[in-house]
Amino acid sequence: MKRKELAIKIFKEMYENDKMSQWLGIEALKISKGRAVLQMMVRNEMLNGMDIAHGGITYSFADSALAFASNSHGRKAVSVETSISHIMPVREGDVLTATTKEERITKKIGIYTIYITNQDKEKVALFKGTVYRSSKFWFPEEEA
Amino acid sequence: MKRKELAIKIFKEMYENDKMSQWLGIEALKISKGRAVLQMMVRNEMLNGMDIAHGGITYSFADSALAFASNSHGRKAVSVETSISHIMPVREGDVLTATTKEERITKKIGIYTIYITNQDKEKVALFKGTVYRSSKFWFPEEEA
Amino acid sequence: MKRKELAIKIFKEMYENDKMSQWLGIEALKISKGRAVLQMMVRNEMLNGMDIAHGGITYSFADSALAFASNSHGRKAVSVETSISHIMPVREGDVLTATTKEERITKKIGIYTIYITNQDKEKVALFKGTVYRSSKFWFPEEEA
Amino acid sequence: MKRKELAIKIFKEMYENDKMSQWLGIEALKISKGRAVLQMMVRNEMLNGMDIAHGGITYSFADSALAFASNSHGRKAVSVETSISHIMPVREGDVLTATTKEERITKKIGIYTIYITNQDKEKVALFKGTVYRSSKFWFPEEEA
Repeated sequence: MKRKELAIKIFKEMYENDKMSQWLGIEALKISKGRAVLQMMVRNEMLNGMDIAHGGITYSFADSALAFASNSHGRKAVSVETSISHIMPVREGDVLTATTKEERITKKIGIYTIYITNQDKEKVALFKGTVYRSSKFWFPEEEA
Repeated sequence: MKRKELAIKIFKEMYENDKMSQWLGIEALKISKGRAVLQMMVRNEMLNGMDIAHGGITYSFADSALAFASNSHGRKAVSVETSISHIMPVREGDVLTATTKEERITKKIGIYTIYITNQDKEKVALFKGTVYRSSKFWFPEEEA
Repeated sequence: MKRKELAIKIFKEMYENDKMSQWLGIEALKISKGRAVLQMMVRNEMLNGMDIAHGGITYSFADSALAFASNSHGRKAVSVETSISHIMPVREGDVLTATTKEERITKKIGIYTIYITNQDKEKVALFKGTVYRSSKFWFPEEEA
Repeated sequence: MKRKELAIKIFKEMYENDKMSQWLGIEALKISKGRAVLQMMVRNEMLNGMDIAHGGITYSFADSALAFASNSHGRKAVSVETSISHIMPVREGDVLTATTKEERITKKIGIYTIYITNQDKEKVALFKGTVYRSSKFWFPEEEA
């Protein structure tokens, strides 16, 4: 199996069991080795007491993107430390895109930046995440 | 109105319109000037593809605590930059507590750390957040 | 005075009094409104107990770049919250370049990402910083 | 050799070769397994263009504390991701204390918070750091 096909196979396996990403309504635009581009729409139930999207929505969206990108290499990876800057308010009906960038990957650690943009291509949030790459594989039979 | 009563009044006003905090099932254990202690239970729909709570759940919980604590002074405050370390896996049925600590507050900026613990008093996440304090008040009539 | 000339004038004023940036041996490659590109060389006295550059060196270099970029608009700005990911070891003799990117600027807040690269164009560190923009100006007479 | 003695032995070995910590003038007040309390004084050459300590000084001080605390277990550890909030200005002549807290340690990852206070016991900075713990030991012969 080619690396891109494996990345997609892992994404499907993860997404199928990822109830939170399903609740967010995440759709994959692109999945490949080390990379994910995702989309979602902000619904009314995602707003906070100031009538803008709760900070947890853009964070959750970025954290899903981190998980999909960092696991796409085959090795199971878990988020260790993450940060997010909320750049612009996000509103109901906004269609958000998360685009990952793999800054660095070693055997044990991966570092990613993720930009979230809205339908007008404005940056609404900037996320940085570090994952720990375990010694377990999603599909050991594919790693020969 | 005393400052503690005002803090509670602001919390109620915010929470009533905060659909995301309602979805999380957040309950306030303590609200006072500069401080919030909150509780929530992790439900099945909050899990990710590894069958543990999605990182966005503990983040959202902490971010709500940040909002309630930092707005409790009367001035409207918005999150600018936040980070979270995921310390231990969180599972379905876990009852989480978020406890805020106001590290520093100036006229314009507030800095908070927030620990999230589980029912066994184990730390599961550590959050740090910076807010910008605007010149708008929740209840201008109370600020005389 | 044009904005670019003002940015350079502010940089000179800051750098002249910035003993730490002088100790680091920072040189400006480009300074303009909202942007700074800087260079420095890693000296023996900057190493830690593992014979690589102390994490404080790349941080200090990035923090200087943040200060120069965020103050270049005319308004005095101070760093509030910053984070850095150490991506690759840095060694004695390495020539580092810091390149700033202004992600967002409002009247009161600025958010910047800064990449540090070495002489082989490898990313060695990734920095994110938030500044608070005060109501004081470097040269009030230029702001008419 | 007891764990505390080993922690001190590792600190001495690290400090002896750590030119940056020496330049900062760091002194150890307490070193034990998983913990370091350090002190330093801010000198004129550590100031920035606003006549306060450069943000890189408190960062470097905290990063040294992170290194000493996280390496004290015997295993060589390197900083991966760190953040610092600058809470109060630091001035020439200030005597700073860094106190580490080990939030979490697994075989591969350690998470620490570090408070920096001044001579008046005021918090001036709050640091959070994640290290990767390698499979190399400082003194393999002590690990039997």
